[in-house]
Amino acid sequence: MQFHSCCIIGLGLLGGSLAFDLRRAYPAMRVTGIARRQATLDEASALSVDGTGIFDRLTTDLSAVHDADLVVLCTPVQTIMTQLAEIAPHLRPGCVVTDVGSTKRTVMNAAAIALPGTVSFIGGHPMAGSDRAGLEHARPGLYVGATWALCVPPGAETDAARLATLITTLGARPLPLAADRHDALVALSSHLPHVTAAALVNVTLGGEDAEMLRLFIAGGFRDTTRVAAGHPGMWRDICLTNRDQLTHALDALLSELAQWRDAIDAGDGPHLEALLTTAAHHRDALNSVKGTVEKTSS
Amino acid sequence: MQFHSCCIIGLGLLGGSLAFDLRRAYPAMRVTGIARRQATLDEASALSVDGTGIFDRLTTDLSAVHDADLVVLCTPVQTIMTQLAEIAPHLRPGCVVTDVGSTKRTVMNAAAIALPGTVSFIGGHPMAGSDRAGLEHARPGLYVGATWALCVPPGAETDAARLATLITTLGARPLPLAADRHDALVALSSHLPHVTAAALVNVTLGGEDAEMLRLFIAGGFRDTTRVAAGHPGMWRDICLTNRDQLTHALDALLSELAQWRDAIDAGDGPHLEALLTTAAHHRDALNSVKGTVEKTSS
Repeated sequence: MQFHSCCIIGLGLLGGSLAFDLRRAYPAMRVTGIARRQATLDEASALSVDGTGIFDRLTTDLSAVHDADLVVLCTPVQTIMTQLAEIAPHLRPGCVVTDVGSTKRTVMNAAAIALPGTVSFIGGHPMAGSDRAGLEHARPGLYVGATWALCVPPGAETDAARLATLITTLGARPLPLAADRHDALVALSSHLPHVTAAALVNVTLGGEDAEMLRLFIAGGFRDTTRVAAGHPGMWRDICLTNRDQLTHALDALLSELAQWRDAIDAGDGPHLEALLTTAAHHRDALNSVKGTVEKTSS
Repeated sequence: MQFHSCCIIGLGLLGGSLAFDLRRAYPAMRVTGIARRQATLDEASALSVDGTGIFDRLTTDLSAVHDADLVVLCTPVQTIMTQLAEIAPHLRPGCVVTDVGSTKRTVMNAAAIALPGTVSFIGGHPMAGSDRAGLEHARPGLYVGATWALCVPPGAETDAARLATLITTLGARPLPLAADRHDALVALSSHLPHVTAAALVNVTLGGEDAEMLRLFIAGGFRDTTRVAAGHPGMWRDICLTNRDQLTHALDALLSELAQWRDAIDAGDGPHLEALLTTAAHHRDALNSVKGTVEKTSS
């Protein structure tokens, strides 16, 4: 059964891009956008696709969820947890609530506590995004080809199938998995790279040689550290809601880096070349994954 | 005084791109390409710009340097050090020899020992390159806007000025500095990011969850680890010829990462947000450096 009225809470890169895609894929769907700031709503009201505005209604009022059969929370993780309690009294029975937050255990737990038994909560996380946050970077097609993780509580299987159909229609790939498994995987694929890139920036550009160093920075440094420009508040939330898995991942990286350090310090060419060869092999294999297009470094 | 006959040793990304630019900027210059493998020479013989071949002569024989007034070594660092001794007996008096190697102290020392007093050696290192190595990725304009470090021994100032003119003509920015200063800066701007990206790949894609992890990898991971696909042998040489500075840089990163790990493990939100904010600030500032264009993450 198709959704008829969708409420998107949080109009940034993910929420805005979702609205673009819904308007295109489901022209008859009523799409409501909710944001905290009037300036965001004004910006959202100007967005259109094929000559039609992408939102039917824009408001700062969370109670607007009352007539939705699909609610998508597109705010940072800690905000999602607060908003679940705020929208709970307004949700109509049979409504499907989902989110796009980067960690899933804390969100699933918060939803189980906050939401009434008359609605389904299915945790979601599309592997799309960028260091460019905000509605001004939203665009149609952001989710094409992206894995879209779905955490489905017992009893919500039918609603999850409806949501998966919508996700597939947007060109993404729904992938059901347990919340703890999700959090362990994104600790490695996303949170660890972010923290590493940010730490690398602080060691280099935060040092006393920063001015001179800028002259020596080329495409490699820019690529390696690009994600570090991401929103600090959003990333603080992500780190804090995935503490155990991220700490575990950081311990693994610290141990690996110590091994590299010792091989370099000892001038151990064969060991160093073996480490570098393994890395190049794995990274090359990533370029040949079907359906992905690797861009050339600048 | 302009150079009339240039010999490029090593026809990869940097050597090939240099030949493109020389042909365009100095049409009358005689350009010789030297490579170890006949297949590389065959590939090089097919390259042209504005309908003219970019090489006047191609050979595997290093003694072809005998009629050059400029020799540019574009091979990996350890090979440069071997080749300096091999070309030494064939160089004509007054010849200027330079290189594009990524570390400068060992190369400067090797040149001082290997080359006769009748020629000038000026260490060079353009901040250009890519994870895409090899002649097939060579292109005109690779060096435009790039800092090109020059290490000038006492007495070589006049020849360094001639070389700096050529570099400026190619659109790059010559920057004279001491070899030890150069090596400390590139340890931070290039070698540390490379080792970090490679270690990150080994911890993630080298683990038992690699298959599943691929489904969770988006643009951020790809950006952060892109350089890890670089040539293992070349990077082994770079690490080994900059051991002390790279070890020093790795110690700083290990200490920084341990600080992040402890803040995350302790759930210390304010400390974590401060670390993230500093990083985002520094990385953002890099995007606004004059003359650079930042591409959007995929």
